[in-house]
Amino acid sequence: MLIKLTEYEKNIQQKIIKLKMESGSHSPSIFTIAEKLPELKINIDSCFLSNPYATALFLRHVKEDLIDTQKLRSILEFYPSQNNVISKIVGDFIGINADNMFIGNGAIEIIQAVMHNFVGSKIVINIPTFSSYYEFAKESTKVVYYQLSKENNYMLDLDDYINFIKLEKPDSIVLINPNNPDGGYISYEKLKFLLKELYFVKNIIIDESFIHFAFEDLEYNQINIEFLFKEFDNLIFIKSMSKDFGIAGIRVGYGIMSKDKVQKLLYNGYLWNSSGFAEYFLRLYTNKDFFDEYNKIRIGYIKETQDFFNSLGAIEQFKVYPSKTNFALVEILDGTSSEDFVSKMLIKYGIYMRTCKDKIGLNGEFVRIASRTFDENEIVIKSIHNAFKE
Amino acid sequence: MLIKLTEYEKNIQQKIIKLKMESGSHSPSIFTIAEKLPELKINIDSCFLSNPYATALFLRHVKEDLIDTQKLRSILEFYPSQNNVISKIVGDFIGINADNMFIGNGAIEIIQAVMHNFVGSKIVINIPTFSSYYEFAKESTKVVYYQLSKENNYMLDLDDYINFIKLEKPDSIVLINPNNPDGGYISYEKLKFLLKELYFVKNIIIDESFIHFAFEDLEYNQINIEFLFKEFDNLIFIKSMSKDFGIAGIRVGYGIMSKDKVQKLLYNGYLWNSSGFAEYFLRLYTNKDFFDEYNKIRIGYIKETQDFFNSLGAIEQFKVYPSKTNFALVEILDGTSSEDFVSKMLIKYGIYMRTCKDKIGLNGEFVRIASRTFDENEIVIKSIHNAFKE
Repeated sequence: MLIKLTEYEKNIQQKIIKLKMESGSHSPSIFTIAEKLPELKINIDSCFLSNPYATALFLRHVKEDLIDTQKLRSILEFYPSQNNVISKIVGDFIGINADNMFIGNGAIEIIQAVMHNFVGSKIVINIPTFSSYYEFAKESTKVVYYQLSKENNYMLDLDDYINFIKLEKPDSIVLINPNNPDGGYISYEKLKFLLKELYFVKNIIIDESFIHFAFEDLEYNQINIEFLFKEFDNLIFIKSMSKDFGIAGIRVGYGIMSKDKVQKLLYNGYLWNSSGFAEYFLRLYTNKDFFDEYNKIRIGYIKETQDFFNSLGAIEQFKVYPSKTNFALVEILDGTSSEDFVSKMLIKYGIYMRTCKDKIGLNGEFVRIASRTFDENEIVIKSIHNAFKE
Repeated sequence: MLIKLTEYEKNIQQKIIKLKMESGSHSPSIFTIAEKLPELKINIDSCFLSNPYATALFLRHVKEDLIDTQKLRSILEFYPSQNNVISKIVGDFIGINADNMFIGNGAIEIIQAVMHNFVGSKIVINIPTFSSYYEFAKESTKVVYYQLSKENNYMLDLDDYINFIKLEKPDSIVLINPNNPDGGYISYEKLKFLLKELYFVKNIIIDESFIHFAFEDLEYNQINIEFLFKEFDNLIFIKSMSKDFGIAGIRVGYGIMSKDKVQKLLYNGYLWNSSGFAEYFLRLYTNKDFFDEYNKIRIGYIKETQDFFNSLGAIEQFKVYPSKTNFALVEILDGTSSEDFVSKMLIKYGIYMRTCKDKIGLNGEFVRIASRTFDENEIVIKSIHNAFKE
């Protein structure tokens, strides 16, 4: 049955829409909503794109390494190491020369640095996309959108895209892989083909912020294609650590780019842009035991996530787009508006989801649903069924 | 007696000099030194410019608010608020409109943003100074140095400076108040006179990173001149929170500048540049009870610090320059080189101090000595006496 709001729910919905407008192109956080709308009881944050099990793992290490040992003070009190020192530590671990590494205060700082310093007069951005790429473009940069085709489930049509780029001749292009907000994944073989064809593009930005949730084999082995950088030096990799490691509050990410680009950034800036906690995390990340523990958690979460997507796909009012990340783009087919759907879920069921009303390049009633813990995902599925049964 | 190094000490000194060269214009951290030179036993970090009592106060709050309550997870897991949300919280507390506030990932990020976005073709920087101001200048910016006079104890000679600026006609000037590395303080009345005379300068950058250690009365009341911004909108205040609150690892600072400048910065960048810990700190900072507790600690530390400077001044081989901050610029008068002095202090006494060999605008044998806890300062004084007695 079409989801309909009560008068009370309509009233709250208006307040939520107002809050959303005030927070620009990113959803208001669950805290802002809880603060501004105390009448709501929010139980599950299906808007938040991070692996909750990885957060728990990290927290256990923080407790053992920092809190129980009294070392927390030094993390908060002293200057962290300079950018190039941390680059060396991470570079040694991932097999990339430190001269090609740039450590960022979150991936967002690297996006900003790349858009402001290297992107020239024209960039092609695929839509739907993560809004910061076009929002952070300089005034002198022309943004050209390449529309991912709904008929092709928003998956990249390689030949069509390559032809588009050859025609438009931009100096820069962005590929988010897997893409946000649909989760569409470009395989290694396709990507390599694309890189060969598009050798003439000055900056090929590949945002791998969600790559830890993607897989190409039945063992869910981690995809590491950063070594491609050695072959194609027009590549700029951008990697957030917030989603896969569940630590958005720490602000940590890294970029891989040509030596001259790193030098340009470090030449007069970005000296102490990591916090003590960011440095602690990156040192932990390069510890093989931690990484092995993390990897088990990563694989378990992917399995639960894909099961969750299957359950979402079994809901008859939904079309779930194929996703190789930890969120699914869902189209509501029965005529219920996405705004009413998320309002009902939030107000009646305490589950916070994201409408995609503000996403350019999407035509239809779309919501984005994040995979959370197993128990939370179960509740989400049951609640959606109930909402449509009302 | 002239301080002389043993052969063993000379050997270690060479290693320290090498480390220092590798870390650019900032001293290697005490951790880097401890890691690279495990033969050293470092007890006191007299290089580090922060109030250790304030760190302890902050740590107590972290324990009570975050660790004991299990709220630490949310600080690490979730996105912090966006820049403009935190601006509002801090602005309300210090009495500045949020539209004029810019929250930075440490003062250093604000220095970088200002140097790259607002400083034009010419800037005047007083030397000796904090090196980032000239290091972060764009290639297209001409840096003109104004030499603070040794005869005048590196205090700013107001009339001479104003004449210099009227002659040079830069678009931007920087005043660090109190200045680093000498601690020279420009009083409120002098500053106001200067601002009136230099109304034609487009950007007057006042770096108040050490202002909490300065005082104009016998009660050590905190100096708040940020309201001057309302009268002079060419002012750009930059404020680190690392030194006064002893939390360099968190990376937090703020800037006050005209609305159009803030808008330019936020228009396409600096979205989530604060970490969860930085936001937690800034919310705590705006809590009146915390601030009152902090203020007591601040005053106690100033008193101990000024006593420490008096004890340093009583050492016959030293000239201590007048400082209203938490470090003193010390000139060694007996012919001992500053390099040998700091090496002796580090290797024999386990006390880490900073030579000022690399500081442009200083001519002589200079070291910069930070005030630490009462007990540490006592040991420092005793050790210096012993070193000269050897």
